[in-house]
Amino acid sequence: MKHSITFLFLFICFLGMAEYTIVIHGGAGTISKKTVRTETELEIRTALSDALKLGDKLLAQGELAIVVVEKVVMFLEDSPLFNAGKGAVFNHEGRQEMDACIMDGRDLSSGAVAGVTNLKNPIVGARLVKDSTRHVFLSGDRAQEFCLSKGAEYADSSYFFVQRRWDYFQKVLEQENNTKGKNDGGAAYMDEGSLKFGTVGCVVLDQSGNLAAATSTGGLTNKKYGRIGDSPVVGAGTYANNSSCAISCTGTGEYFIRGTIARDVSALMEFKGLSLDKAGKETLDKLTKMKGDGGFIGVDKKGNVIMLFNTEGMYRGYKKSSMDQPVVQLYQKE
Amino acid sequence: MKHSITFLFLFICFLGMAEYTIVIHGGAGTISKKTVRTETELEIRTALSDALKLGDKLLAQGELAIVVVEKVVMFLEDSPLFNAGKGAVFNHEGRQEMDACIMDGRDLSSGAVAGVTNLKNPIVGARLVKDSTRHVFLSGDRAQEFCLSKGAEYADSSYFFVQRRWDYFQKVLEQENNTKGKNDGGAAYMDEGSLKFGTVGCVVLDQSGNLAAATSTGGLTNKKYGRIGDSPVVGAGTYANNSSCAISCTGTGEYFIRGTIARDVSALMEFKGLSLDKAGKETLDKLTKMKGDGGFIGVDKKGNVIMLFNTEGMYRGYKKSSMDQPVVQLYQKE
Repeated sequence: MKHSITFLFLFICFLGMAEYTIVIHGGAGTISKKTVRTETELEIRTALSDALKLGDKLLAQGELAIVVVEKVVMFLEDSPLFNAGKGAVFNHEGRQEMDACIMDGRDLSSGAVAGVTNLKNPIVGARLVKDSTRHVFLSGDRAQEFCLSKGAEYADSSYFFVQRRWDYFQKVLEQENNTKGKNDGGAAYMDEGSLKFGTVGCVVLDQSGNLAAATSTGGLTNKKYGRIGDSPVVGAGTYANNSSCAISCTGTGEYFIRGTIARDVSALMEFKGLSLDKAGKETLDKLTKMKGDGGFIGVDKKGNVIMLFNTEGMYRGYKKSSMDQPVVQLYQKE
Repeated sequence: MKHSITFLFLFICFLGMAEYTIVIHGGAGTISKKTVRTETELEIRTALSDALKLGDKLLAQGELAIVVVEKVVMFLEDSPLFNAGKGAVFNHEGRQEMDACIMDGRDLSSGAVAGVTNLKNPIVGARLVKDSTRHVFLSGDRAQEFCLSKGAEYADSSYFFVQRRWDYFQKVLEQENNTKGKNDGGAAYMDEGSLKFGTVGCVVLDQSGNLAAATSTGGLTNKKYGRIGDSPVVGAGTYANNSSCAISCTGTGEYFIRGTIARDVSALMEFKGLSLDKAGKETLDKLTKMKGDGGFIGVDKKGNVIMLFNTEGMYRGYKKSSMDQPVVQLYQKE
């Protein structure tokens, strides 16, 4: 009798649990078996898998999409493996200058910070902008002061420091000096040969059918002049709308801004009636035609998933409520 | 014989001149016959008319859309009547901190600056970002340094000063102090009773069928924390695409960012096949439902014009090649 009741209770719980989906990325670029070392590959797969498990656990508990995307991006920011939070790349002044954005598909409410240097988790700053101001987009030191005054955690520059990033920054500086004159028109020198966009992002469909998106990045190594990329720009690198989908992007941010990439996937669904998959592919084609590099992840209200990119690889993964284990992928084919 | 040849020459010139259209705005808000003084009204009508005449002259000479939107917005920035360039409103620190964006419908190339304080013409900075970097969006003092290094004209704070703006800033500061505690959650205190968004913008169809858009603003009086509005955000306050339309917005910027308003007008045309007029009205409805205030101007590749807003009034006007005189309007009905 006791067993029957327990069984019945579990069965009801199972029936009551609506489906959910989480998708994440950790950047796109020249990611192939040749360029990624075996031990790094393992670390990255583990980090992505752990991030998905964290999100999965929260979603199973019934957490809202907007809460889950924040927590999962925090987790990815805390990992030194990705270009966001700890391990963010260095700008031209040798500082880690970070951007982040969060958007709630329920009401299109959004928050973004650009050019913050001492918020342990820039995505928390973005969330505070969304929740504690009537604004969407705050920038620079004053944005940071505001976030700290509202309880965001401070971190010293040394916290964000990762030797590998510093070494790469030095290499890029050296290359820039060697090409002086040829390249002084561009704001940030880019090492075109080994482009990696280590931006992190998360999109979620929660049990209540809500969508949310969050993106966080250190931007480009050696970036100058207060450059802002697509990550903190609603409609470019980040977008969520309960009536269509949630999208997070990574790549050559300028093309994502000009192509309003994240919003376009959503607009093709809303205005043209395309499926998430078709809308995503059409938008990736547009990006490719513009000569933009990178990719994006997306989820719609039915839990369909896209993880599309035109680069060699993209750190990515997803987990649905119906799956036992998360799927994690790095390369084009696997 | 001589007369016939001259006549023939003029006739060929007339045939050769393709049609063009220019549309401008100087902000939206609580603009009504009650709130605008007679002498101010005359000044504003004259300034808008002169701006249109300048654009008309350039377009008749065959200038490109991207050149015309820059020159016309420069003209509006130079006028102390509007909240852009000279006459920009004061931020919380008592500085004029300006944003601008320009976009070329031919290739979606774009440039934007946010938070510049000493560029005489922020729109020139935006153009320099578009043309002289591989970036789209630069912010703060370093953006300004870059633009100055590329030849943008410097102007001292005193150049931008307008007594009326300063007095209003003092009034807002006083109101803020009086409501302390009730309002400290918001980043910028806003005087809800007399909202005016004096942003300026210009959209153009040139003789070659190219579209371009430009927007420039001082943002909100007493804005804090490095707030960025919609004006410099591609797809929010500014958008141009030869395959659809060119749009420039003014209003409560946060809603234009969340609603990706400028891109939505264009996307409704591209993805849903709507006319500019219908796309504009559908997008304004969306803005109104979101409780966003303001409006936008637009032109499509056929030279159709929209000037839509949900506020009491919007400073606006347009001129087509086929018209003798520009149309200038301020209020809802006129």
